[in-house]
Amino acid sequence: MKDFMDKDFLLSTETAKKLYHEHAEKMPIIDYHCHLSPKEICEDKKFRNLSEVWLGPGDRTGDHYKWRALRARGYMEDTISGPADDRLKFDQFVESMPYFVGNPLYHWSHLEMQRYFDIYDVIKPENADKIWAEANKKLETLSCRKMMYKMNVAVACTTDDPVDSLEYHKIMNQDKTLKTKVLPAFRPDKAINIQLPTFVLWIKQLEAVVNYEITDLALLLKALNERIDYFNEMGSKLSDHSLEVVHYKKTTYEEADAVYKKALRGEEITSDDEDSYKGYLLVQLAKAYNRVGWVQQYHIGATRNNSEKMFKKIGPDTGFDGMGDEIFIEKLGQLLADEDSTDELPKTILYCLNPRDTYALMVLAGCFQKEGVKGRVQVGTAWWFNDQQDGMRHNLEALMQSGLISQTVGMLTDSRSFLAYPRHEYYRRILCDMLGNLVETGQYPASELDTLGKIVEDICYNNAKEYFNF
Amino acid sequence: MKDFMDKDFLLSTETAKKLYHEHAEKMPIIDYHCHLSPKEICEDKKFRNLSEVWLGPGDRTGDHYKWRALRARGYMEDTISGPADDRLKFDQFVESMPYFVGNPLYHWSHLEMQRYFDIYDVIKPENADKIWAEANKKLETLSCRKMMYKMNVAVACTTDDPVDSLEYHKIMNQDKTLKTKVLPAFRPDKAINIQLPTFVLWIKQLEAVVNYEITDLALLLKALNERIDYFNEMGSKLSDHSLEVVHYKKTTYEEADAVYKKALRGEEITSDDEDSYKGYLLVQLAKAYNRVGWVQQYHIGATRNNSEKMFKKIGPDTGFDGMGDEIFIEKLGQLLADEDSTDELPKTILYCLNPRDTYALMVLAGCFQKEGVKGRVQVGTAWWFNDQQDGMRHNLEALMQSGLISQTVGMLTDSRSFLAYPRHEYYRRILCDMLGNLVETGQYPASELDTLGKIVEDICYNNAKEYFNF
Amino acid sequence: MKDFMDKDFLLSTETAKKLYHEHAEKMPIIDYHCHLSPKEICEDKKFRNLSEVWLGPGDRTGDHYKWRALRARGYMEDTISGPADDRLKFDQFVESMPYFVGNPLYHWSHLEMQRYFDIYDVIKPENADKIWAEANKKLETLSCRKMMYKMNVAVACTTDDPVDSLEYHKIMNQDKTLKTKVLPAFRPDKAINIQLPTFVLWIKQLEAVVNYEITDLALLLKALNERIDYFNEMGSKLSDHSLEVVHYKKTTYEEADAVYKKALRGEEITSDDEDSYKGYLLVQLAKAYNRVGWVQQYHIGATRNNSEKMFKKIGPDTGFDGMGDEIFIEKLGQLLADEDSTDELPKTILYCLNPRDTYALMVLAGCFQKEGVKGRVQVGTAWWFNDQQDGMRHNLEALMQSGLISQTVGMLTDSRSFLAYPRHEYYRRILCDMLGNLVETGQYPASELDTLGKIVEDICYNNAKEYFNF
Repeated sequence: MKDFMDKDFLLSTETAKKLYHEHAEKMPIIDYHCHLSPKEICEDKKFRNLSEVWLGPGDRTGDHYKWRALRARGYMEDTISGPADDRLKFDQFVESMPYFVGNPLYHWSHLEMQRYFDIYDVIKPENADKIWAEANKKLETLSCRKMMYKMNVAVACTTDDPVDSLEYHKIMNQDKTLKTKVLPAFRPDKAINIQLPTFVLWIKQLEAVVNYEITDLALLLKALNERIDYFNEMGSKLSDHSLEVVHYKKTTYEEADAVYKKALRGEEITSDDEDSYKGYLLVQLAKAYNRVGWVQQYHIGATRNNSEKMFKKIGPDTGFDGMGDEIFIEKLGQLLADEDSTDELPKTILYCLNPRDTYALMVLAGCFQKEGVKGRVQVGTAWWFNDQQDGMRHNLEALMQSGLISQTVGMLTDSRSFLAYPRHEYYRRILCDMLGNLVETGQYPASELDTLGKIVEDICYNNAKEYFNF
Repeated sequence: MKDFMDKDFLLSTETAKKLYHEHAEKMPIIDYHCHLSPKEICEDKKFRNLSEVWLGPGDRTGDHYKWRALRARGYMEDTISGPADDRLKFDQFVESMPYFVGNPLYHWSHLEMQRYFDIYDVIKPENADKIWAEANKKLETLSCRKMMYKMNVAVACTTDDPVDSLEYHKIMNQDKTLKTKVLPAFRPDKAINIQLPTFVLWIKQLEAVVNYEITDLALLLKALNERIDYFNEMGSKLSDHSLEVVHYKKTTYEEADAVYKKALRGEEITSDDEDSYKGYLLVQLAKAYNRVGWVQQYHIGATRNNSEKMFKKIGPDTGFDGMGDEIFIEKLGQLLADEDSTDELPKTILYCLNPRDTYALMVLAGCFQKEGVKGRVQVGTAWWFNDQQDGMRHNLEALMQSGLISQTVGMLTDSRSFLAYPRHEYYRRILCDMLGNLVETGQYPASELDTLGKIVEDICYNNAKEYFNF
Repeated sequence: MKDFMDKDFLLSTETAKKLYHEHAEKMPIIDYHCHLSPKEICEDKKFRNLSEVWLGPGDRTGDHYKWRALRARGYMEDTISGPADDRLKFDQFVESMPYFVGNPLYHWSHLEMQRYFDIYDVIKPENADKIWAEANKKLETLSCRKMMYKMNVAVACTTDDPVDSLEYHKIMNQDKTLKTKVLPAFRPDKAINIQLPTFVLWIKQLEAVVNYEITDLALLLKALNERIDYFNEMGSKLSDHSLEVVHYKKTTYEEADAVYKKALRGEEITSDDEDSYKGYLLVQLAKAYNRVGWVQQYHIGATRNNSEKMFKKIGPDTGFDGMGDEIFIEKLGQLLADEDSTDELPKTILYCLNPRDTYALMVLAGCFQKEGVKGRVQVGTAWWFNDQQDGMRHNLEALMQSGLISQTVGMLTDSRSFLAYPRHEYYRRILCDMLGNLVETGQYPASELDTLGKIVEDICYNNAKEYFNF
């Protein structure tokens, strides 16, 4: 029997241990997609106690995984996302821990205690006082920057709206004391989501930022290109799109412009309109990203705010999103083909939320490679509701079996929490375990272990550094 | 090499054995969803021989798994579902057994022989005479009630139409000698399926039962509520809906009523009509279930009577249903949100037939939790074409990784056969094997084995008892 | 640690080794679906060097798996599918090999070197010169027929258009020196794909072959039946349809004929037209196949020519196809039910490209069995983007758990390469490993190993021989 979560956690063979401890473990982290608060990093925020950093809402709301699990336990919402007492929140989380058996929270929570706080106790009510005291003591000095250094984070890319002033990024760009590169990433969902009632308001915000009226689509493209240039100056290397459903059809400028003007007039936008406008805009944005040498990311298949009741009560991004089951491969293929038809398809990472689509996405990505680029279009790591162990194994298996795992850019946290970095470790352990298994079962030569170790280092760090050009 | 199907069958580690033998094995069975015949239990039916109870059609038709396998073997339909000689049926099943390698029938059949008849022989032609003689001997005294007692069945919920008089349940409610609680469950599919030619006939049946004409939707709701109250008096704790495709759109009473009246007039019902009527009725039924404190079940994604030829020959529910691949998550989410918007969403168990949808369903369930309830909305165990080993493992993995397995209500048989109870054992062994694995590989602390044992007992029995309020 | 790809490759237990070495290994290969060139076999082509046979375009284009992997590596298209130097192509493939870790190419390539060339070196740059020299030496005598004999190929079925003269098959039918049975298979995709601009041109070709004008659908059916008879005379035993999307609706002759005439007039074909015409034609072809006792194959879910840019540059079937995610179960069920309604549904093998659909397909196949036939409708082995290890395991698991693996017709290559035959070995090793595992874990009795060995032999060879009637 293996010991509980010791240094060889998840490493089931000698080769896996070697790959992890001699190669993966030492590599810095590039977290190219997260939702950390630039303000909190910039101000080097400290946390009042373990509850705040571990469970509580941060600047951009808290850890949905924990909140969802606590809701399933039947706790009161006030003690989850609300203003209840910190110690009470902590206690009910600890009380729940044994019931998280099989869930990644059980591992993540222990890794978080081990790596940030050097606490190796089993998290359970009997140990609550000790953990509370020890962790809070550490938090007196453990600021969010120190957390990132402790986790060896070389680069972290936040997620930012095109209208964002990037004021904190500007300051951090000049801050010689900051040892982690903190860069913005361009997330123009609000420019894409023309069907939402908030679209016109957002256009007003963009007008205020660029300082001219945006009365047609050409002007919108001009404005977005200006913001891309600004983000680029601020060090951005990538964009990100959440495509709940993939909308695309071959569209002329005039057709897409007509839809834009319909939206400005407050008229209803049909699904066909969305195909025109969104397809057109995505193609034009791809050209812009390609112009500045960025990577684009398409995150496909989330459903938003499923509980209308909770949306009204506590707003978006609080743990009520879901996983869609829509058909999208044909339109996505046409979209990529359109972008590629003029040789302006940038490096692209595709993520599907529903794991049932991983293989179809892998195969599609394989149709859009480019001379001189390793893995121009690739499928990303297990995303969101998939970054638990079985999700990662499924994703990595697909990346291996129907693609080239050796060229992938590895893990990201996608998280709002500074305590999320052990998920990189989790990923690396699983990766090394799977690769180690290939060697141990005679599927990759033991004689080539050095090469394999190098490949592990590439996946953990070097590939991302090269692909994104950090 | 492990011995063939001995007491440690499917238990690959010491921890798994401990969890199973010290915790799971002793727990009574709550079979909260089955298709057993209330009449046969009430009358404590005996079977003329092994063929009748094992292979033959019972009161509500036989074991589809066995029938489908025999059809794939190419046997004559008369010797499968028809009137052929019992011994001949038995012999051809035994003859086929070796060719069921890898199929759950191989395990289930042996478990059935072991647990009910204490027969531990390999089922194969050489042993046919011995098995036939020994089992038939046992069947002289082994009535269907005794089978349920032997399997330690504490509760069994049958599946009943709203128009059913529940005459046998009424008798059994008074029967002090009956040691298993046998309760009805409310299955109003015929009230929902307004598009079927049989809809109006069924309304006529309902009118006869409630003793008034049902000329509008308000009266239908009145009638259904009366039947719910009657089922409730008879001890029912839950309802069940088979949603082949999920139909829903936000609908007023007037719109749904108009569709109902169209159906009464024999006019054609469009898919849009189905969205209106079915969505509206499901929301109203949810309110009714909530009023009486029931659990509702949605079984999603069956396709019915795929072979028109066999449907004409031997009718429905004879092994010709299938697994759909329709999109349903968006409408299901809207339906649940609607029911929840007035705080009348009852406890709900969601089942998808197509395993590709398990994760999307898990994530959706996580969006509809409730203060003060453990796992208000949850995903059920592997259903129908998924209750074999790989299906159960896939289902349990999903319940663990993206939910809280510790709170789930465990296995059900969904079966028409009194010999199906070892499927609970099958489930428990797989569950213990998976949980044991977590301990053995350092993913859950060995020091917390008592807690884990308690969780196993909860999943096998306590959770269901509490959730359904048996 | 197991040795790298030795004789017990992928066989993790003693029982697996026994099943493979005593049963699977010795069975001849029936490759009932491949894309080999009849001309090359007929002329017993020799290859100028390893690069040509291993990487280069053959008569019907090369090995897409290798091309796709090389494109993902970023190599120039000219050095992949183009006219670049053979040694350069070889070198860059060898250079890439270590980076194929986890991908089936790593195994397949080594198996190809081992089985055809007796080269057991690790494929890597250091060994490039040696491998190049030794393999090229062997190729001086190793013609394509000798490759097939070396791999013990008893039967190979090519893929042929109805208008094909089968001239090479005719010659080979008479060739007493040819030790492998090489038979045509009927692939009338061009008759089905009425929506393509090339449809009318193809009808012209068919007219030239049958020597009359095909002015209505009755004449088209007459012509196709004549070609089926001709293929049948030439030894064909099966047909094959690529159904990118499943089109079907119940249609009269007059309706389908009207669509046919629309197409002849060059009018636009709607999706509804496709449902009519394709559904009708598939039903009529099924009748024809049934008449001559053939097996029909439906390959469902490919998407074609995703990269418009590369399609323009190098044409179809060059590695830019993908995996669709369309819904198809309902229409496929109706199509099979229609064919079965008159008892003219022939033996049928169903393949889905998207692995997410395997279980739904398995369950559907189970609804269409036939008295006197073992597995009349069955699901085929892992197809195309699924014939790697995880894909095969997933497919085999489904065939076992929700069907009868013992009756399946086993592996096929679907390949354009003479070096693809070790994929049968790959399949057999995985099959034996999985079956061996059942025995070793107490899930199948060790006492019945002889029966299991016989079942392995059936799956590898006997079942196909009987099912197709070779």
